Amino acid sequence: MDLKVLHQLSYGLYILGAPKEGGGFAGCVVNTVFQVTSEEPMVAVSVNKDNYTCSQMEKAGRFTVSILSEETPAEVIGRFGFFTSRDKDKFGETDHELRDGLPYIKENCAGYLTCEVAGVYELSTHKVFFSKILDARAGVSAEPMTYSYYHRVIKGKAPKNAPTYQPPEDKGGKTAFVCDVCGYVAEIDGDELPEDFRCPVCGVDRSHFKKRG
Amino acid sequence: MDLKVLHQLSYGLYILGAPKEGGGFAGCVVNTVFQVTSEEPMVAVSVNKDNYTCSQMEKAGRFTVSILSEETPAEVIGRFGFFTSRDKDKFGETDHELRDGLPYIKENCAGYLTCEVAGVYELSTHKVFFSKILDARAGVSAEPMTYSYYHRVIKGKAPKNAPTYQPPEDKGGKTAFVCDVCGYVAEIDGDELPEDFRCPVCGVDRSHFKKRG
Repeated sequence: MDLKVLHQLSYGLYILGAPKEGGGFAGCVVNTVFQVTSEEPMVAVSVNKDNYTCSQMEKAGRFTVSILSEETPAEVIGRFGFFTSRDKDKFGETDHELRDGLPYIKENCAGYLTCEVAGVYELSTHKVFFSKILDARAGVSAEPMTYSYYHRVIKGKAPKNAPTYQPPEDKGGKTAFVCDVCGYVAEIDGDELPEDFRCPVCGVDRSHFKKRG
Repeated sequence: MDLKVLHQLSYGLYILGAPKEGGGFAGCVVNTVFQVTSEEPMVAVSVNKDNYTCSQMEKAGRFTVSILSEETPAEVIGRFGFFTSRDKDKFGETDHELRDGLPYIKENCAGYLTCEVAGVYELSTHKVFFSKILDARAGVSAEPMTYSYYHRVIKGKAPKNAPTYQPPEDKGGKTAFVCDVCGYVAEIDGDELPEDFRCPVCGVDRSHFKKRG
C-alpha cells in the first residue's frame, strides 16, 4: 500500500469563516470544498474535528468559503492555516469584509460562497458539512489556487490537521531549520539561513527559525 | 447569486470501476474523489444517482479509482464519461487490468485506489460514498489531470450528469456543431468543419457532427 498515491488527488485551497461564540469570527484553511449536487447546488466541506472553526461552524449552522487564488499572499494562508481561532483574531488581522454578518477575505480571492449547514457526516478525524449555497459571488479573475500549486510554488507544508498531512522526512546532507510560527521546514546546504530569509508560508524573518536537532 | 463561481472550485478527474451485476464491469468518469480522514485514510467519492455505475458500486460495496493524468487520451474520458455501462462494455474496449477481481485503466494513470464502501450519504442528485482504502498503487509520473485542465486543454464539456454541468451558451457569430456521440460542441467561424476534424472528447470524425439548429 503506497499512501503517497493520495497526493495525486486534486484539491483547491479555501478559507472558511464562521461566527465565534461570544463574538468575533473563527476561520481556518481547508483543501476540500466540492459541489455535490447539480440542481439546487450544494457543497461538501471537510474540516478536521480538532479545528476550533469546525465546532463554530456546527454551532452557527452557517459559514463562508473564500476561494483562494494564486495571488493570495502566503502570510494569509499561514495565518489561517497554522494558528487556532481560539486565541487569535485571524480575520481581525486580515483585510476582510462582512456581508449578512459573515466574514470574507477581501482581496485576491477567486470567489465567495455563503453556506448553510444541511447535514454533518462524522468520520474518525474529520467532519463533512453538506451545505446549501445561500449566496455565491465572483472575485478576482486570477486562477484559483490548487493545493498542488500551493505545495509546488508557495513551497509550504501541509498543516498538521490537513487530511493530507505527512510527517517530514529526514533528508541526509542538508541542514533543516524549522519555523517556530508555522512549522515550515527550510532545508539548505549551508549551516546558516541567508540574512534576508523569510518564511515562505507565514512571512516571519529568520530569527523565528531553529535548527532541527 | 452567481453560480458560475462554483467553477472556481478545484477538482481532479477519475474513472471509477465496479463489478457489474451478472458479470463484467461498470465504470464512469467523476471529478470528486478526496481524502476525508488522515489516520486510516478514507476517501469520499460523489457520483450521480442516474449513473449506472453508482448503483453497481453500492451493490458490490467495492470499487476502484483510476487517477487520470494529463496523458490520458480524450477518447478514454469520452468513452467512460458519455455512455452508460448498462449497454456498453467500457472496460472491455479499454486497455485495463484486473487486481483482486476489480478493473483499472492500464495506462497513463497517475495512481490507483481500491476502495470499500463504509457509508453512503444520499443527496438530491448525487450519492457520496465514504470509503476505506484497501490498496493504493502508484502510476505514471505525469501530472494528475485536473478538471480545469480537462476543460481548458482537452476542451471538453461537462457530461450532463456532472454536478458542475452547465447548459451550453449561445455564442453569436459562430457556427456550432454538436457531436452526436459525446455532446461536444465545436464552434467555428466557417460553415463547415475541416475534413480531418476529430472530436477532441470522444475521437469520432466529423460525420458525427450535426449543425446546431
